[in-house]
Amino acid sequence: METPHRISFVLRAIKDVVFEDRPIPQLRNDHEVRVHVSQTGICGSDVHYWQRGRIGDFVLNSPIILGHESSGVVVETGSKVTNLKVGDRVAIEPGVPCRRCDYCRSGSYGLCNDTIFAATPPWDGTLAKYYTVASDYCYKIPDHMDMEEAAMVEPVSVAVQICKVADLRANQTVVVFGAGPIGLLSQAVAKVSGARKVIAVDISAARLEFAKGFAADGTFLPPRAEEDVDPIAHSEKIASLIKEQFELGEGADVVLECTGAEPCIQAGINVARKGATYVQAGMGKENVVFPITTACIRALTIKGSIRYSTGCYPNAVHLVASGKVDVKKLITNRFKFEEAEKAFELVKAAQEGVFKVVIEGVQ
Amino acid sequence: METPHRISFVLRAIKDVVFEDRPIPQLRNDHEVRVHVSQTGICGSDVHYWQRGRIGDFVLNSPIILGHESSGVVVETGSKVTNLKVGDRVAIEPGVPCRRCDYCRSGSYGLCNDTIFAATPPWDGTLAKYYTVASDYCYKIPDHMDMEEAAMVEPVSVAVQICKVADLRANQTVVVFGAGPIGLLSQAVAKVSGARKVIAVDISAARLEFAKGFAADGTFLPPRAEEDVDPIAHSEKIASLIKEQFELGEGADVVLECTGAEPCIQAGINVARKGATYVQAGMGKENVVFPITTACIRALTIKGSIRYSTGCYPNAVHLVASGKVDVKKLITNRFKFEEAEKAFELVKAAQEGVFKVVIEGVQ
Amino acid sequence: METPHRISFVLRAIKDVVFEDRPIPQLRNDHEVRVHVSQTGICGSDVHYWQRGRIGDFVLNSPIILGHESSGVVVETGSKVTNLKVGDRVAIEPGVPCRRCDYCRSGSYGLCNDTIFAATPPWDGTLAKYYTVASDYCYKIPDHMDMEEAAMVEPVSVAVQICKVADLRANQTVVVFGAGPIGLLSQAVAKVSGARKVIAVDISAARLEFAKGFAADGTFLPPRAEEDVDPIAHSEKIASLIKEQFELGEGADVVLECTGAEPCIQAGINVARKGATYVQAGMGKENVVFPITTACIRALTIKGSIRYSTGCYPNAVHLVASGKVDVKKLITNRFKFEEAEKAFELVKAAQEGVFKVVIEGVQ
Amino acid sequence: METPHRISFVLRAIKDVVFEDRPIPQLRNDHEVRVHVSQTGICGSDVHYWQRGRIGDFVLNSPIILGHESSGVVVETGSKVTNLKVGDRVAIEPGVPCRRCDYCRSGSYGLCNDTIFAATPPWDGTLAKYYTVASDYCYKIPDHMDMEEAAMVEPVSVAVQICKVADLRANQTVVVFGAGPIGLLSQAVAKVSGARKVIAVDISAARLEFAKGFAADGTFLPPRAEEDVDPIAHSEKIASLIKEQFELGEGADVVLECTGAEPCIQAGINVARKGATYVQAGMGKENVVFPITTACIRALTIKGSIRYSTGCYPNAVHLVASGKVDVKKLITNRFKFEEAEKAFELVKAAQEGVFKVVIEGVQ
Repeated sequence: METPHRISFVLRAIKDVVFEDRPIPQLRNDHEVRVHVSQTGICGSDVHYWQRGRIGDFVLNSPIILGHESSGVVVETGSKVTNLKVGDRVAIEPGVPCRRCDYCRSGSYGLCNDTIFAATPPWDGTLAKYYTVASDYCYKIPDHMDMEEAAMVEPVSVAVQICKVADLRANQTVVVFGAGPIGLLSQAVAKVSGARKVIAVDISAARLEFAKGFAADGTFLPPRAEEDVDPIAHSEKIASLIKEQFELGEGADVVLECTGAEPCIQAGINVARKGATYVQAGMGKENVVFPITTACIRALTIKGSIRYSTGCYPNAVHLVASGKVDVKKLITNRFKFEEAEKAFELVKAAQEGVFKVVIEGVQ
Repeated sequence: METPHRISFVLRAIKDVVFEDRPIPQLRNDHEVRVHVSQTGICGSDVHYWQRGRIGDFVLNSPIILGHESSGVVVETGSKVTNLKVGDRVAIEPGVPCRRCDYCRSGSYGLCNDTIFAATPPWDGTLAKYYTVASDYCYKIPDHMDMEEAAMVEPVSVAVQICKVADLRANQTVVVFGAGPIGLLSQAVAKVSGARKVIAVDISAARLEFAKGFAADGTFLPPRAEEDVDPIAHSEKIASLIKEQFELGEGADVVLECTGAEPCIQAGINVARKGATYVQAGMGKENVVFPITTACIRALTIKGSIRYSTGCYPNAVHLVASGKVDVKKLITNRFKFEEAEKAFELVKAAQEGVFKVVIEGVQ
Repeated sequence: METPHRISFVLRAIKDVVFEDRPIPQLRNDHEVRVHVSQTGICGSDVHYWQRGRIGDFVLNSPIILGHESSGVVVETGSKVTNLKVGDRVAIEPGVPCRRCDYCRSGSYGLCNDTIFAATPPWDGTLAKYYTVASDYCYKIPDHMDMEEAAMVEPVSVAVQICKVADLRANQTVVVFGAGPIGLLSQAVAKVSGARKVIAVDISAARLEFAKGFAADGTFLPPRAEEDVDPIAHSEKIASLIKEQFELGEGADVVLECTGAEPCIQAGINVARKGATYVQAGMGKENVVFPITTACIRALTIKGSIRYSTGCYPNAVHLVASGKVDVKKLITNRFKFEEAEKAFELVKAAQEGVFKVVIEGVQ
Repeated sequence: METPHRISFVLRAIKDVVFEDRPIPQLRNDHEVRVHVSQTGICGSDVHYWQRGRIGDFVLNSPIILGHESSGVVVETGSKVTNLKVGDRVAIEPGVPCRRCDYCRSGSYGLCNDTIFAATPPWDGTLAKYYTVASDYCYKIPDHMDMEEAAMVEPVSVAVQICKVADLRANQTVVVFGAGPIGLLSQAVAKVSGARKVIAVDISAARLEFAKGFAADGTFLPPRAEEDVDPIAHSEKIASLIKEQFELGEGADVVLECTGAEPCIQAGINVARKGATYVQAGMGKENVVFPITTACIRALTIKGSIRYSTGCYPNAVHLVASGKVDVKKLITNRFKFEEAEKAFELVKAAQEGVFKVVIEGVQ
């Protein structure tokens, strides 16, 4: 297959992707820049749209370009752009909010209902030669950072937001459910934020092994529930084992749930000490059996984390640029742009050894 | 039945109460006072111990005196007591913590594991002639407050804590599930804290009628679910109706759940706007089907509220003394001490017209 | 003097104002609206520019139209405006930020360096027939609110921001220095936010008398310092007198300093209890002798309040519309547009009986 | 000079210290422990009492034993002590509060008016063979920590509190005034809390050199003011230089003032960006000329930090035990108990090369 210059990787319908030649996108206003995309990481949500065509209220009704974790080089700037110039290498924040609603004006722009978010229907993503975006949602990276690292700023920002939502403070004990990319990065961000102890929980021994070498102080592989055991009782047992093994006393100060799996949610609530903070970052079943009385009696603070907020991207750039979070270790697979579908297949397969897959941009 | 001077109302075992003659309690240390109990309100938890013998980990293994919402007159003071003197009329905070654990030292004394809490096994309660308690957990009331009002300071404190946990600010919209005593008082405390709009939700039209005359700006009686309707879908419908009827836009700023009922919890999450705070104060089923993805996507803050914390009692005394919260309206039934069992039977019956039942102390 | 339709009240240079005929302002983008100005309040800062030509870094280098506390009627809407339509009666927030800097994106838009603020050099103000402004900085008022009340939303918003910066909670004791418009409105907003006790301090007995009838629970007229008394020592004495007279114990929970006067700042720090919050809202001398050791030992939180932030205007509209804050009482003097200079002279004279002066718009 | 077993280092009056034989202190209640003191650091406040006899309201009216930064070994435990046993090696928190006042009950025990604080009149300190103290104010240290490190937990706790008061978050830029022990430790605690950049400011080049090797990312030696320069103008210049040299943009996110020197306070306010937090931790002149208008316009949060609060000691033990803060580097001088006066003389001399002086306990 040939690769024309403006080629894009398009999701036409469920399980139907195709390379298409698209017109070069124009700046929509004087504050935008056009970026030549360099590298794009693939995320579970990309695969989800590909396989199912929807996430929550976002439904694929017409074709969209996929991809939203990207870096690139500025090739055009609007007349009012002052923070960037042509040639600047940038990490791209994929969602640009309306700037006018109460959420935007109060600093919670991640909650804006009118956000233009890359690769979220009906908005095109970044798996194309060019992407146009508001200049203040592009972050210049230092010379020593490469474009793969810059693409990884996106998942690092997700982790920064999770830790921010958790109101994480130095010297706290943190239990993180999940050792996929977001779980691992949350562990890393927690660690460089001064966490006293970061414990990774996952059902894959291989991922836990990786977590240990990445940022976690300890790891925990939950035993399977014996048959006929009540799930909540089993989650209490798991919580007890974690508390005991890692000397957490009454429980963790902070729990970051990055799987969305019902047993993890249940164990997560139970592993939190009284007065602790629990953050729901993973998404799975829409509704779960939830130990609400425990949450109440323990006076927990349970918060949902979604996307990013002010400061997440700049902080993530800093964490990557300073080497505090070594994102290179997470990139296990690299693909040429024309191999995009293969890359998606690999992420879909969800093998233990595959952490982060990146696709090179169109030259 | 005769009433000896030191008579106490004792729960011997499940469904087995009796009047007993008990020795006058002695001050346990120089900081305690002995209070001649004047009035005691009855709470659902009192009835729960009576009928079931346990709440959570607190199990009745030996007889305890019941009652924990009391006022009284100081009759003896320890040598180091400086804040009170004999003759002072006081509201009694029923739980005295250890003062030494991390929870106590960090200001979350309501979470202390070693709290001596009146009428919580194995600790005796206040339905006796005398009660001894730390002097700093007794709050002097002004002359114009009567002893019934002083007894009502306890549930008002619970409501103050709920609003404090909610981090309630002036001008917020508040939806309160439940129009029993705690729900009603939470509505009142929210209102005098400057809430823009307080909406009461309950399944009793009579209670809602009362709520309207008490503090609520609006009331909502949820329609029954039609058969075969998914409970979560029904809760979404109820939430939509509330938002529409009371012009809450995307939802309430604050939700206070004071019932513990599963449908209320579900509707409560759905009626909260993005970024809102939801407080779980009611307790019912230990585990419920919970819309966790909605909580996550909406970036809610969900908190459990339990008992009280610093400032709740003084603030509650102020709210009652100033007339901002008119607790007298809630007291629907009064009993002599020797009628205590009858009083408990009445609370157990849970009639719509019965809000708060108080028992006069032993002369 | 004749009044042409587009007439404006222009500050040409220090102490040099003039009526000028200006072209009708055009919408600068699709999100703007044009408002026919109805009423404009005069603020100390307007007078300050008139008399001195500068406030801080804002220097009058070319003529500007004065006025920034205005209400009006929408007469034109940009193509993307959805929240307003022609004919809507609105309160106008005078500062529209850039929406792109870190302050804007984090919800602190009042700190934006690129705000277009009415009547702050080099930006024109509202004392003209028409004013164009971003539609989300115009707030529709209910039918029963009049245009004078709508103009008063501006100072009420300032007071809402002061109380927000103070993190004011229900049941706190509040001492407010200053009983001019901002001080009085801060007292009122504190009161309707559930403050336990609001004490007004001012050097004018007449203003204090007014404060008492407006919102304050108590008032305090500081005694003059005797000759040769150290100012800090005098401020400690004043603080002690206030604490004693109003039974504040160790001091106030919250201090709102709305004068900028050095003796008030000093007394304000001293009247705060340990751990209290002190808000500096008034501005006077750039540098003052400040009891820094007291601030340190008492672990005070001292915060500056400036302009408004998200929610201030909507909340202020609600407070006025609901009658919770009766701004009509503050309006002591009314002028026709052609009498604008007379109105400014009156504010400059700073008589005790003059609280708020409003100027009617051009018909 | 002979060294009897219960010998104490006593401040009898200003500049009058003496070794005295004192009776072995008895446990005051069942919750106390008696500690055989191992090592004691000397602090500026110790020297201050020695030279001047008072700090603020604390006045030396009768002899007191000096010293409050100590470690030791538990030799006796009260009957209700459960967290410690004889032989445990501990860091001693020097102030035990009343546990009953509002400050204590709300978690601000450092503000308690009735704290028994070692070596603060009228309370005896730790420069004696034995010290008795509440068991929950003794913190067991791990085996690999030595007693000098344990004594250093006190100043580390002060730094932990300063960073806690600053509400310090990961990725913030921090400017610390002062490179004495508290300044250096604040720099270190900020750094391990994930600060993006920590800048040390001091007037001693030697101390700055040390700071660079300890924790600071950058150091700044302020130029002297030229004659006739207004101090505030000079402080603005220093602030500008710091911002420029360390690329702080509009200023630092957090300023920690650990000197109490007027020029540092002035420069500190000016080096803070809008919306920043400034913590006053150093104490010098009681009143200073303060740029209040800058503080107001920039919407700063200015907070005083004093002593410690819940979690400071445990966190400080962790930071030392984990090697995150290498306190050994700070200990420049060691003395035998009988050389105590010599040790005090050395601290008083305030030489550049002297950071922390410790005195060995009586065997």
